[in-house]
Amino acid sequence: MEKLLSQNINRIWSSLIIDEFVKNGITQFYLSPGMRNAPLIAAMIQLQKFHKEVEIILCIDERGASYRALGYTKATGKPAVLVCTSGTALANYTPAVVEAKKSNLPLIVLSADRPAELTFCDDNQTIDQTKFFGDYIQGEMSLGAPTVDISPLAMTSSLSNLIHKSLYPQKGPVHFNCAFREPLEDTSIPVPADYLKLAQIQIERSGPSTRYVNLETRPDKNAIAEIAEVLKKSKTGLLVVGSLAPHESTALVEEFVKLLNWPTYFDVSSSLKYVFNLSDDTIPTFDHPEVQAELIKNPPETVFHIGGRLTSKHYYTFLKKVPQINLITLNLNMEKEDPSHHTKIRLNAHINSTLESIMGYFEGVKLPKKSLALNFEASSKSKIKLIDDGPLSYPSVSKIIIDNIDDYSMLYIGNSTVVRTFDAYVSYTNRKHIVVATNRGVSGIEGFIASSCGFIDGTKKDVYLIIGDVAFIHDLNSLYFLKDLKTPLKIVLVNNDGGGIFTLLPINREKTVLDYISSPHGQTFKKTAESFGIDYVQVTTTSSFQEEFKKMQNKNHHTIMEVMFDHDTNKSVYDQLKTIKL
Amino acid sequence: MEKLLSQNINRIWSSLIIDEFVKNGITQFYLSPGMRNAPLIAAMIQLQKFHKEVEIILCIDERGASYRALGYTKATGKPAVLVCTSGTALANYTPAVVEAKKSNLPLIVLSADRPAELTFCDDNQTIDQTKFFGDYIQGEMSLGAPTVDISPLAMTSSLSNLIHKSLYPQKGPVHFNCAFREPLEDTSIPVPADYLKLAQIQIERSGPSTRYVNLETRPDKNAIAEIAEVLKKSKTGLLVVGSLAPHESTALVEEFVKLLNWPTYFDVSSSLKYVFNLSDDTIPTFDHPEVQAELIKNPPETVFHIGGRLTSKHYYTFLKKVPQINLITLNLNMEKEDPSHHTKIRLNAHINSTLESIMGYFEGVKLPKKSLALNFEASSKSKIKLIDDGPLSYPSVSKIIIDNIDDYSMLYIGNSTVVRTFDAYVSYTNRKHIVVATNRGVSGIEGFIASSCGFIDGTKKDVYLIIGDVAFIHDLNSLYFLKDLKTPLKIVLVNNDGGGIFTLLPINREKTVLDYISSPHGQTFKKTAESFGIDYVQVTTTSSFQEEFKKMQNKNHHTIMEVMFDHDTNKSVYDQLKTIKL
Repeated sequence: MEKLLSQNINRIWSSLIIDEFVKNGITQFYLSPGMRNAPLIAAMIQLQKFHKEVEIILCIDERGASYRALGYTKATGKPAVLVCTSGTALANYTPAVVEAKKSNLPLIVLSADRPAELTFCDDNQTIDQTKFFGDYIQGEMSLGAPTVDISPLAMTSSLSNLIHKSLYPQKGPVHFNCAFREPLEDTSIPVPADYLKLAQIQIERSGPSTRYVNLETRPDKNAIAEIAEVLKKSKTGLLVVGSLAPHESTALVEEFVKLLNWPTYFDVSSSLKYVFNLSDDTIPTFDHPEVQAELIKNPPETVFHIGGRLTSKHYYTFLKKVPQINLITLNLNMEKEDPSHHTKIRLNAHINSTLESIMGYFEGVKLPKKSLALNFEASSKSKIKLIDDGPLSYPSVSKIIIDNIDDYSMLYIGNSTVVRTFDAYVSYTNRKHIVVATNRGVSGIEGFIASSCGFIDGTKKDVYLIIGDVAFIHDLNSLYFLKDLKTPLKIVLVNNDGGGIFTLLPINREKTVLDYISSPHGQTFKKTAESFGIDYVQVTTTSSFQEEFKKMQNKNHHTIMEVMFDHDTNKSVYDQLKTIKL
Repeated sequence: MEKLLSQNINRIWSSLIIDEFVKNGITQFYLSPGMRNAPLIAAMIQLQKFHKEVEIILCIDERGASYRALGYTKATGKPAVLVCTSGTALANYTPAVVEAKKSNLPLIVLSADRPAELTFCDDNQTIDQTKFFGDYIQGEMSLGAPTVDISPLAMTSSLSNLIHKSLYPQKGPVHFNCAFREPLEDTSIPVPADYLKLAQIQIERSGPSTRYVNLETRPDKNAIAEIAEVLKKSKTGLLVVGSLAPHESTALVEEFVKLLNWPTYFDVSSSLKYVFNLSDDTIPTFDHPEVQAELIKNPPETVFHIGGRLTSKHYYTFLKKVPQINLITLNLNMEKEDPSHHTKIRLNAHINSTLESIMGYFEGVKLPKKSLALNFEASSKSKIKLIDDGPLSYPSVSKIIIDNIDDYSMLYIGNSTVVRTFDAYVSYTNRKHIVVATNRGVSGIEGFIASSCGFIDGTKKDVYLIIGDVAFIHDLNSLYFLKDLKTPLKIVLVNNDGGGIFTLLPINREKTVLDYISSPHGQTFKKTAESFGIDYVQVTTTSSFQEEFKKMQNKNHHTIMEVMFDHDTNKSVYDQLKTIKL
């Protein structure tokens, strides 16, 4: 049995392409089939016989495939390869590619294409696929149809370079477009012996064609010293931890939080929100008029913001009102990550290695505690009581889940009200390491079921997906993924008949607009679950939710818990929470 | 009650935008809600009170929305407007935009956006939306956030021009990107009185800001004379009718076919395949070795190809072998529509007006009948007998439908084997006007349920959708559309557990590849139909299919008929059909 399929030049190139991925440690393939990508499929299957770590996940809907791949990259930090046929197939990847670009995830699109002579003459299932994703990818390669005029190494070393571009200077999507002339099946069209020989040598070699060493980007020595001094000398400070990659260890950030000893705000997408609690001098929220007023009156001298954008809009409202603040941000991203436009010093660098350097500078130093003139104890207690005593609503959903979920669980959180309610909840006593994944790059509503399946692919652990009804409908056919997914996906589906977030915004007063904007559908999902053969339960009260959530944790199979409440009930809880004074 | 919402500049602009569409006769809006497009939603609702013809169709999934809009434009030839919020929302439109570009359909994307100051700083749900669809649109406009520095007429007359670009020189998608600054709700921020006055005058005027007169593109007098002479003088000829827009009358093409008196091949997407039959000197297929051999041996002097690309790959195989043929093509499309690369004379013009001119030249002339040296009688009879006597398979599905369907029915035909089997069937005796719609621009697998719902929106007539299981799964959540769709969609869902087309291709011999490429799923769809509350029946024999199809025709509600057969049975029918000699 040969690694290299050699029936024709398409098979040779396909073998070398897949092999180059494997040699770069990239073994996760999300495949949407077609005829044009048959050579790639054949090569994947062949290589899998030699490399058991190769996973080929068959996906009918390319959009679902792309979000599943996105979830995998989020869980592992490793590239995943999307393989599709020519035409609109790759167009279905567009939303996930955009999300991957904005959340720095190394998606690799490997699209089959027709050769140039079929591209510009309206041949069937053919479009011009070059530069298809525009600015939303950070590397693209199109070498034309396989030919013996391009040596095996010329091709594979270029692919190695493209893979590198998916990882540095920041992670992001890249696109390799592969045009294939017929035959696409295994028809024998021998290539010259010397070319075949080169291809065989290449595939038998170990390691990538070119190995790009791992890189870390950190501020230089002087910059580290400068930042460390600023942090040390600031009379008052606020540490803000934004989104962090869920696959990376947060241990160093935790250590830094403790060392710096500043009041800290954690975004839910940092995975650290539940590691600390209110007694740790954390700020539970910026969404409170008194908190805003106090912070604006007595702003911290320095705000040090680690990680990506925050879920809280109110954080940015606050920043916009205090231009005198020394805002320092640390996150690796070439774009201007600064919705407040107030960043004074930008550390466009790897978080962990930068913090390590700063901490090295602090060795032996005990930094004094710098609290804010804010006390959240009474108000937090009142809020918790209000949620505990109130009806089933978003705040009780997030609170019950966080209070009851096991330490080290995996939580995939949907957008809109879902992510906001988890972002708003801070425990009073608990401390839990919950790995939190979100799609906050562009915060689209699509692809959450698929993304959480991909998160399972990457972690091999049970995942809890908390999702609203609109997002659930959007990604419905991704439920087909569950049939072949061994590790349980546990879906908490909050169904309040449409986009409830709008009832919490000023647009709520425009009832005729609300009737459209909230997209009510009148649907419940028991029969949907049945049609996919998924275990299902519906809950309508906080006590049954709590009970069923505990049961859900012990289940060893996919399950959907549909949580029912209406906009009015939910809004009444939010309205009451607003009345609580600091 | 005022037409113009005037609470703030966003509402004024939104009113003027929607009003300008309505004044251009564009009244079909496919809305996927969000907060950023709230001003547009409010304006649509307000204008609907004054213009009952305005339809606002609420769509949760933007991809479904875009294919539904595509179906509407296909049914009517009129533009439809897609309205979405900022971020990945519009990315979900990409496949339909690409399909619209390639099939010349006037889709208008009206995307809400955030203003420039939020675009390049990683603000939430924000991407750079300019030039988002690259080369796949034929007009784009982004005027920045509404401002009194741009007069009402400057804005609306630009929009009139953009609408014009969706219609001429050829139809195709355009994109109007609308950035809105807050407030998005109806908060009052008065604009200067003179600006408001201008806006009010504009909205009270009748007719578009600028009315672009209808245009027709036809060859000039000399060119018409030249073509008419060529057609008249050709000793042998073949007329080929490719895809025609389903909303356009085919009367003139029919007349031309009869006048020219040449052997004719009709593509299924011409809607004329079943208007003529075998006794009308039509060529039933190019997919037969003897037909190819005979045509290559004695090629017609001239091939006159009207309309777009053919479904038949074998037509192009034939053309490639006879470069001496005088191939003349007529279809309005700036791109090179010529997969054979053999076109000698290109009439890039409107079909009907061009044919009218040519026919004017022929007035009083009786063109002689020019048959090919091919007789299809015996082979066609044998094929029909084989299909009638054989098991349930694709050929029997298409034959039974065409034999039994009422005259003037609407048929939406899916891609892959589905479209090929309808393209291969020609009746021996029947003549029927069946309006046929397909998505053959790029021949993607996605969006067929949505497209056929849009076709109902445009025609207000029952539509039969014939679709395979892979395409059905791909577009599953579009079944939610049926809840509010009054006119019945009748779905014939052919379920042979995956992409059966591959079993008919040479790749069939590679069993391990076939296991992936055919994407088997083991799913049947009774419970799925139940979960959407749709009438359902399953058939497994030709007789039950025939019986249930007749029942289906009399039904007055949405229904799914699931047609079950396996790849092997289907392949055996195709294998037997191949053995029939000419």
